[in-house]
Amino acid sequence: MKKILIIGGGFAGLTAAKGLGNLKDAEVTLIDRSNYHLFQPLLYQVAMAGLSPAEIAVPLRSILSKYKNIRILQGEALSVAPDEKVVTTTIGRFDYDTLILACGALHAYFGNEHWEADAPGLKTLEQATEIRRRVLSAFEKAEAESDPEEKSRHLTFIIVGGGPTGVELAGALGELSRHTLAQDFKNIDPTLARVILIESGPRILPSFSEPIARKAARSLEHLGVEIWTAKRVTCVDDTGIEMGQEKLPAATVIWAAGIRAARLLTGLDVKTDAQGRVLVSPDLSLEEHPEIFVAGDQAGLSDDQGNPLPGIAPVAQQQGEYLARTIRGNIEGKPGKPFHYADRGQLATIGRSRAVLEYGWLKLSGFPAWFLWVIIHIYFLIGFQNRLFVILRWASSYLSFRRGARLVVNKSWRSYPDGDAVPPGHTKSYNRNGS
Amino acid sequence: MKKILIIGGGFAGLTAAKGLGNLKDAEVTLIDRSNYHLFQPLLYQVAMAGLSPAEIAVPLRSILSKYKNIRILQGEALSVAPDEKVVTTTIGRFDYDTLILACGALHAYFGNEHWEADAPGLKTLEQATEIRRRVLSAFEKAEAESDPEEKSRHLTFIIVGGGPTGVELAGALGELSRHTLAQDFKNIDPTLARVILIESGPRILPSFSEPIARKAARSLEHLGVEIWTAKRVTCVDDTGIEMGQEKLPAATVIWAAGIRAARLLTGLDVKTDAQGRVLVSPDLSLEEHPEIFVAGDQAGLSDDQGNPLPGIAPVAQQQGEYLARTIRGNIEGKPGKPFHYADRGQLATIGRSRAVLEYGWLKLSGFPAWFLWVIIHIYFLIGFQNRLFVILRWASSYLSFRRGARLVVNKSWRSYPDGDAVPPGHTKSYNRNGS
Repeated sequence: MKKILIIGGGFAGLTAAKGLGNLKDAEVTLIDRSNYHLFQPLLYQVAMAGLSPAEIAVPLRSILSKYKNIRILQGEALSVAPDEKVVTTTIGRFDYDTLILACGALHAYFGNEHWEADAPGLKTLEQATEIRRRVLSAFEKAEAESDPEEKSRHLTFIIVGGGPTGVELAGALGELSRHTLAQDFKNIDPTLARVILIESGPRILPSFSEPIARKAARSLEHLGVEIWTAKRVTCVDDTGIEMGQEKLPAATVIWAAGIRAARLLTGLDVKTDAQGRVLVSPDLSLEEHPEIFVAGDQAGLSDDQGNPLPGIAPVAQQQGEYLARTIRGNIEGKPGKPFHYADRGQLATIGRSRAVLEYGWLKLSGFPAWFLWVIIHIYFLIGFQNRLFVILRWASSYLSFRRGARLVVNKSWRSYPDGDAVPPGHTKSYNRNGS
Repeated sequence: MKKILIIGGGFAGLTAAKGLGNLKDAEVTLIDRSNYHLFQPLLYQVAMAGLSPAEIAVPLRSILSKYKNIRILQGEALSVAPDEKVVTTTIGRFDYDTLILACGALHAYFGNEHWEADAPGLKTLEQATEIRRRVLSAFEKAEAESDPEEKSRHLTFIIVGGGPTGVELAGALGELSRHTLAQDFKNIDPTLARVILIESGPRILPSFSEPIARKAARSLEHLGVEIWTAKRVTCVDDTGIEMGQEKLPAATVIWAAGIRAARLLTGLDVKTDAQGRVLVSPDLSLEEHPEIFVAGDQAGLSDDQGNPLPGIAPVAQQQGEYLARTIRGNIEGKPGKPFHYADRGQLATIGRSRAVLEYGWLKLSGFPAWFLWVIIHIYFLIGFQNRLFVILRWASSYLSFRRGARLVVNKSWRSYPDGDAVPPGHTKSYNRNGS
């Protein structure tokens, strides 16, 4: 019985597990910090109150329950002893014959990690809910504010980073303020909210071709988004941001400017690239430990032209499928072929009915690109119930301009945080947002 | 222009606001701590992973946006100066001609408020998410646990309090363990989980008639719920509970044993009953301040037989409607009539297809009661989109035995809680569940 241990239930780990499902003579253990698989491409919709967390996350157990040889555990991997072939986790030690590391990526601040408190990134459901809380609260605070300067600070939203995530966030935020919330307030005009997208390079969407990026910029401006290029953020705090001498007061800052691979398990001594991705062999294994594979955002591999593969779902899925095929082949004694990425192109959506899409020679923008984006995303959404709900919610949002998940949920759940009987907010002053 | 200030957007406050919508010469301000109206009767479904928070909560702004004379603000009322007719809140001071207090109720521990950390109650969305997190995590921990005693502790769920909330929680939890999760685990058998409902009185559902309560008990036992009556909890900590000399180890304890009214604004000197409800005049006003009304769970009023009105949605809604009518009448110079509650009966649901219902001479149990319960709850769910989604999710859950919202969401959203670049869980040991 071959023991296969998979760390991480993202696109790479989940696809690999599925590919190994019901494989004879193989016992698969999948360990993840969460109990669900997250459909990250739609995370920005949760942050912008368009979807509920449960609509883009499916319990790993329900996806994999039909495979008898797969065990799922919720825990965190800490270290690996490659010579003994043992991984230590928060829920015990696990030995393996084959190990797949697919722990994904984090947002990165490149040495300014203390900015996180005032400029959250968007990689987890918790972060998406936190951003949603900040954005909706900013409008609520502006409504109650009488000082015009403070009011304008609450109505200024900064998104740092002009890649696909920043563009999708900015578009959704522009739409939220210009359409969804337009009628809801009495003291403020939400359509006057400023949404500013800041990019340090000369243009947004640097990975797209120039004409397509220009169309995206125009679509964003159509939603009222200001695009500031060639600006580098030098300071973030709770009053706003600084770009050199320039100061921009803002209550809400969202960080979409950097990504880096999840930290590798301690005990492995391997080379990584500038973003912390493990430099793997062409078959995704480690040179000194051919039984250890790295896949998804954590793996650093280049295409035939020498460009690093992008950190997107299709790469991770293809690597997961490839690993399942390779491991099945190994068991049958077949030699493995190197991994080859079949380019699925790239796309970014802008608001309710526009997108940009590039797939080889095919370059689309506007409504056709958006329509394709919808089809592709729903096709990939795992779990029938989720697919159905997302379609329905989108249809209803599209027709009504409303958003279904506009809740400001607090972080603290306790009514009696100090253990005494005084409810919060009255004679004692509790911090409602967690201690 | 008459200024009407409403504190609280629950059933009472929201219904009152709606009834005053577009009233000429009246300016209505509704202040709530949250930005949404919560459909509390279905809160237990969120706690038991059947529904998503957004499905039972609708932004107050969208419900009331069509009324031009209603302003909605998110904030917390702190105190009132009844002689100056001014309420002080976290977002400023508001003067009023008429004040409606409808701040609802909290779960109560009667002097043991420090138990909350180990036995959360169920009154807010945040608490429902916390209970969901604990319940689902308990199964995950049991799956990873090798010590049989610890495993059994993780698989023991205690619900304290045999009223409708406790009964609904126990039924949903019995069903979750016996049906939804039955196939999902490899090391444990979720159907062996113990769900124990503890009631200090001689029987569960004391407000129902005895035959109906007995039927509810049988339905619960059918779902594997153990019912322990005449047991008083004397201690709760993170290992389990004590009832006198008896100790019961359990990882998950849920508190449904007590309710008390939200604390009254400081500055008011009025009589309250044992549960902190304000003893109001027959027209819901304060004797010394006829321009201040109290409604919903915060008001202490009795029916014609001298029994206190129950803390349920129909009472709050009828009081809200009554207040709107009274205030409209006052403006037109009409004299007010005392409030009279038209009894809407009571009901409690037990799992997927049983319920108990009492409405005057009509006493139903089993599927007919459950069917009526579904119709009534969906009828009262505010907002078309929510109604549609709840029906669809229920239909799909009913057919598939799955639950749509089985997510363990963490309380902490930060990847870099100390502001340095080490991601959690690796070389440094972070507490993932918030600091």
